[in-house]
Amino acid sequence: MGANPVVYGEAYGFNPKTLLIYGHYDVQPPEPLEEWKTPPFEAAEAEHERIVARGASDSKGNVKAIESYKALNFDLPLNLKVIFEGEEEIGSPNLPKYIETYRGRLKADAAIYFDGGLDYKGRPGISLGLKGILYVEFRCKTAKTDGHSSLAPLIENPAWKLINALKSLKNEGGRILIEGWYDDVKVPTEEDISLLEEINEEDHKRSIEELKRHFAVEDLLGNVEGLEAIKKLLFEPTCNIAGLCSGYTGPSSKTVLPSEAYAKIDFRLVYDQNPGKLFEKLKVHMKIRGFRDIEIKLLGSLEPSKTPTSAPIAKAVKMAAEKTYGVKPQAAPMSSGSGPDYVFTKRLGVHSVWTGCAPIFSNAHAPNEFITKKTFLDGIVYASLIMENSHRCESPFSAGELRVKTRFNTLGGSSST
Amino acid sequence: MGANPVVYGEAYGFNPKTLLIYGHYDVQPPEPLEEWKTPPFEAAEAEHERIVARGASDSKGNVKAIESYKALNFDLPLNLKVIFEGEEEIGSPNLPKYIETYRGRLKADAAIYFDGGLDYKGRPGISLGLKGILYVEFRCKTAKTDGHSSLAPLIENPAWKLINALKSLKNEGGRILIEGWYDDVKVPTEEDISLLEEINEEDHKRSIEELKRHFAVEDLLGNVEGLEAIKKLLFEPTCNIAGLCSGYTGPSSKTVLPSEAYAKIDFRLVYDQNPGKLFEKLKVHMKIRGFRDIEIKLLGSLEPSKTPTSAPIAKAVKMAAEKTYGVKPQAAPMSSGSGPDYVFTKRLGVHSVWTGCAPIFSNAHAPNEFITKKTFLDGIVYASLIMENSHRCESPFSAGELRVKTRFNTLGGSSST
Repeated sequence: MGANPVVYGEAYGFNPKTLLIYGHYDVQPPEPLEEWKTPPFEAAEAEHERIVARGASDSKGNVKAIESYKALNFDLPLNLKVIFEGEEEIGSPNLPKYIETYRGRLKADAAIYFDGGLDYKGRPGISLGLKGILYVEFRCKTAKTDGHSSLAPLIENPAWKLINALKSLKNEGGRILIEGWYDDVKVPTEEDISLLEEINEEDHKRSIEELKRHFAVEDLLGNVEGLEAIKKLLFEPTCNIAGLCSGYTGPSSKTVLPSEAYAKIDFRLVYDQNPGKLFEKLKVHMKIRGFRDIEIKLLGSLEPSKTPTSAPIAKAVKMAAEKTYGVKPQAAPMSSGSGPDYVFTKRLGVHSVWTGCAPIFSNAHAPNEFITKKTFLDGIVYASLIMENSHRCESPFSAGELRVKTRFNTLGGSSST
Repeated sequence: MGANPVVYGEAYGFNPKTLLIYGHYDVQPPEPLEEWKTPPFEAAEAEHERIVARGASDSKGNVKAIESYKALNFDLPLNLKVIFEGEEEIGSPNLPKYIETYRGRLKADAAIYFDGGLDYKGRPGISLGLKGILYVEFRCKTAKTDGHSSLAPLIENPAWKLINALKSLKNEGGRILIEGWYDDVKVPTEEDISLLEEINEEDHKRSIEELKRHFAVEDLLGNVEGLEAIKKLLFEPTCNIAGLCSGYTGPSSKTVLPSEAYAKIDFRLVYDQNPGKLFEKLKVHMKIRGFRDIEIKLLGSLEPSKTPTSAPIAKAVKMAAEKTYGVKPQAAPMSSGSGPDYVFTKRLGVHSVWTGCAPIFSNAHAPNEFITKKTFLDGIVYASLIMENSHRCESPFSAGELRVKTRFNTLGGSSST
């Protein structure tokens, strides 16, 4: 299968340091189409100075902010290597191979994972790591065809089997019961906790309140609040049922004995859990617990990433954020989301910071996605200032060997599976 | 909501005994339409003398066989009361009320539930009872909208909650864990077992082998075979998941935290479990086990029915079957399926026998449903001979008070909810 091409560009600056910037040009599918007020793939101007289109906030606004720096013909303060991939929304399945293939060419002093957005105070989110993920599908087929439910005493129902298997994965307190699942968990560190404690308690409270209001829930799992809730969010490995299906799911009733059942399960991983090792542990668990005839399919995986608080690139990003947005930013030790950040921290061995300039509540992944003109223009300034500040990064490499002055161009779909 | 009308007819015969015959004129939806070779609602002649149409076998063949008796202008040997309802395929929700309303008029000496078919030896199935059913839906909503699965540490996932609730209903051996569920189970009786043992062991084996081949399964639940399997099939109360749904169920992966999950569950009941009482027990169970926020919706229910082996109507049907089809028939104490037979045995207090004349493997509920000309004509003879033999029934009522000679006509949709 051919992969979507990775757009790669290099540019030469007056300082020998090299910054690698990652973004993605692919978007989520536009469905449901009927909820869009304007065609999703034509940028339309709307009230409140919005520009509405699929990808406006996730993540073409970010990509454009980076591109604009060159388009505006500023002199580059450092060397720039830019990777815009086209498969972020499907879990970056081909990026690791691409990074491995071009490992030499991609050498840099630090990386920016530019795919984030602003918080409720208008500050860009800054995170020093991303969670990993292991996404699997369980599929259980017990008979050739569906049957009449009167046969339930004799023919095995795959939905029951699936439920037994799922139930074996986790207890009601949320603890994952797969042997050795927590062996490699190395977070939160003392540094992680003190970084979180630096953040205004009011901010933690506020973001948790926003969350509760958005989902209209009264209590969070474990009845946590404030800082405790944030810690749980960032450092708890999860086992989430993303999808579940068997038999008749339409209105009213149908007396069917299903022949097939399946579940989609995503495990979020924290530093330094490894999805490959855990997938093996999961398979062993299923065998030992007697679920040999449930097919386990790997649908995707990403390793977790982590960059120390002291990383120079972290300081550079914070300085750029404060200068651009006029508010002191707060760096989080970890994001609750996942992304291919580990290819920079683990495969290329550089520090990496996740940030971005998308507006808050901008309908990412939903109809009528937008960016505002102001956030877009601020984003250009923010991206520029990150570059300006980044030449202060310390270099773990002897950077500077690649000084080809090019416009951004495509290396092609070389990262095929 | 208006119910589909019940077609009711009475006819006068030369013997004072009264036979009530039940059939249904409604059919399953014809979907999937693209699999039909001829339009589903136009009877088409096909190879092997088939007449193909939705309802041909289930149950218009049966209904027509009964109607033909009058159409052929035979003299009736007894009084006939005929009920053709239009809601059998959706669980006869309005029939009990109809029966209650016309209780006096419907008095009879025995009943025939004419909706069955032939077995692999060409003998009509005869059953002295039907299972009951309790069909419910569990629905669990934990948040206003679906969320990103990164929020799994904080926002409750309804799929997990649903799984915990379902898992609490039944152990892995199939035993239902709801307190008092088996309190009213009165089968199998010694009579039931001896009736089953009368049936050729070869027949049990054969029907179980057919079942395994049809579903391509190697073993049945509990590794039962032959008579043991038949006993399990007919007398085990079940808790079957007919449908299960939550979150993203399309191809590949999506990292979603669902806000809603639901399951459709049918409990088959054996004599003399009562769906109303058991629905209350289920609700108590869910409360006690802490699943208060799972909505439990009643989608349908039918009580089980039972007629003794010694019932004269059972003998009459067996005689008619042997005379029509030339093979000694075998009466089963119970059918694995459910139907509104209890309105005759429990509400009207008469013996009732389930039988019919549909061909085996005739695509009932599926595309290209058919009846063959031979089975149809045999059915007319079978229905006639049942009537001929039924005036030997003993009468628990002083039958004969209604002697209005009418053609079959409609009483109208009086059984509305």
